[in-house]
Amino acid sequence: MIIGFGFIGRDLVKAFYEKKDAIRKIDRDFKVIGVSHSKGYLHNDEGLDLQRLQHIKNLEDYGSSYHAGESSLGLIEKSEPDLMVEATPTRIKDGEPGLTFIRKALNSGISVVTSNKGPLVVAFHELTRLAEKNGCELLYEGTVAGAIPIFSLVRECLQGDRVLRISGILNGTTNYILSRMYFDEMSFELALKEAQERGISERDSSYDVDGIDAACKVVILANALMNRNVKFEDVEITGIRGITQEALSLAKKS
Amino acid sequence: MIIGFGFIGRDLVKAFYEKKDAIRKIDRDFKVIGVSHSKGYLHNDEGLDLQRLQHIKNLEDYGSSYHAGESSLGLIEKSEPDLMVEATPTRIKDGEPGLTFIRKALNSGISVVTSNKGPLVVAFHELTRLAEKNGCELLYEGTVAGAIPIFSLVRECLQGDRVLRISGILNGTTNYILSRMYFDEMSFELALKEAQERGISERDSSYDVDGIDAACKVVILANALMNRNVKFEDVEITGIRGITQEALSLAKKS
Repeated sequence: MIIGFGFIGRDLVKAFYEKKDAIRKIDRDFKVIGVSHSKGYLHNDEGLDLQRLQHIKNLEDYGSSYHAGESSLGLIEKSEPDLMVEATPTRIKDGEPGLTFIRKALNSGISVVTSNKGPLVVAFHELTRLAEKNGCELLYEGTVAGAIPIFSLVRECLQGDRVLRISGILNGTTNYILSRMYFDEMSFELALKEAQERGISERDSSYDVDGIDAACKVVILANALMNRNVKFEDVEITGIRGITQEALSLAKKS
Repeated sequence: MIIGFGFIGRDLVKAFYEKKDAIRKIDRDFKVIGVSHSKGYLHNDEGLDLQRLQHIKNLEDYGSSYHAGESSLGLIEKSEPDLMVEATPTRIKDGEPGLTFIRKALNSGISVVTSNKGPLVVAFHELTRLAEKNGCELLYEGTVAGAIPIFSLVRECLQGDRVLRISGILNGTTNYILSRMYFDEMSFELALKEAQERGISERDSSYDVDGIDAACKVVILANALMNRNVKFEDVEITGIRGITQEALSLAKKS
């Protein structure tokens, strides 16, 4: 089941369709029985038609099986899938609406996969404990360094080790802007504009540029890999908005 | 059970002793019931005393439980452990003596962990199939990039992906020598001598310098991660013995 049919939800349906043979080698009975967005949901226990689903932009265009005006919570209650993929928009402040959906699923023993930082930043330990208590899994590999399996690496492959330090580029947009400023002597404003035009930066650039996105990742990494109990407020944040060409020239010389 | 009590076998005993609490969290009944070297073996089904074992250099110094003149094969037959760690010296030509011990264990349904490249270079697919057939595991993370869990990373964390290319520094000694030659304009002979004196290079430096070690790793990586069927003879090898200061100067300029 997929909660959310924005960019991530639609891309996931495409990936499911393209990799369906590989997935069925692992799970012969794999099917998508429900997809929801904020205005209603599709539901069919026999499995939705992935080929049809990957070509539509809005769930109501699927045709049959669409329940207008009904909520994602209703879908979770009604369909009881093995796995729920939560793909609603990120809100750091309270983790909603994803947090409510994830709580609901885990409480029903439904495993959850999410790439939504909000719920994890707000309630990491509550959710991991909930999953443990109900004998299901909460997986969140996509929240940090999406293409690098960092959480499963530590969980599956480094069992005898303790993580002492984590370092890396935590925000690609910031890295892009700083690189353009440093190597091509571009101004901050121009580099940011370019990043936005190339679709690298979020629409609300403050998430990237003011370090909010990186801070969220630090919270999740510290809690998940170093067994800490850290909140967003605990992270000391310095954005890159105030960095000038002059500061970079000085950095280059030193 | 540990086959081989050289540098690796002794260090493993130390690590078992130091991490015994962490290990027992995973396996409450963990114990080492046998250790062998080429001249005999220790065996005690109740578990050997790791504290005593970590302080001796030769198995016969352990005292009781030592069976002089008996072979590792005999120990495998007699003790039937859940897991055998194979830590005999590496011989690329025929993979022996490790290959025989690993075959014996897998045929008896005993899982095997080895960091010995020889048996895997000679008989990778035979051994992995043997493990599969007998419902046990063959693990060899230590053979390539010992500190990086590269094989379990791909097996556990990248199940949906296909490995298209592998790149990296495959031999630390070669990298050390080239760095000293390139950055400090040292001669090949001097850099090699330094590497040997610092204990970085193998006693037989040809393994490192002539690319044999790196070629073995290529064979194992290609077979394990790219599903190839490659032998040592299939790898094109260029060592670093012939590289001169003049060649490096030219490389620097280009």
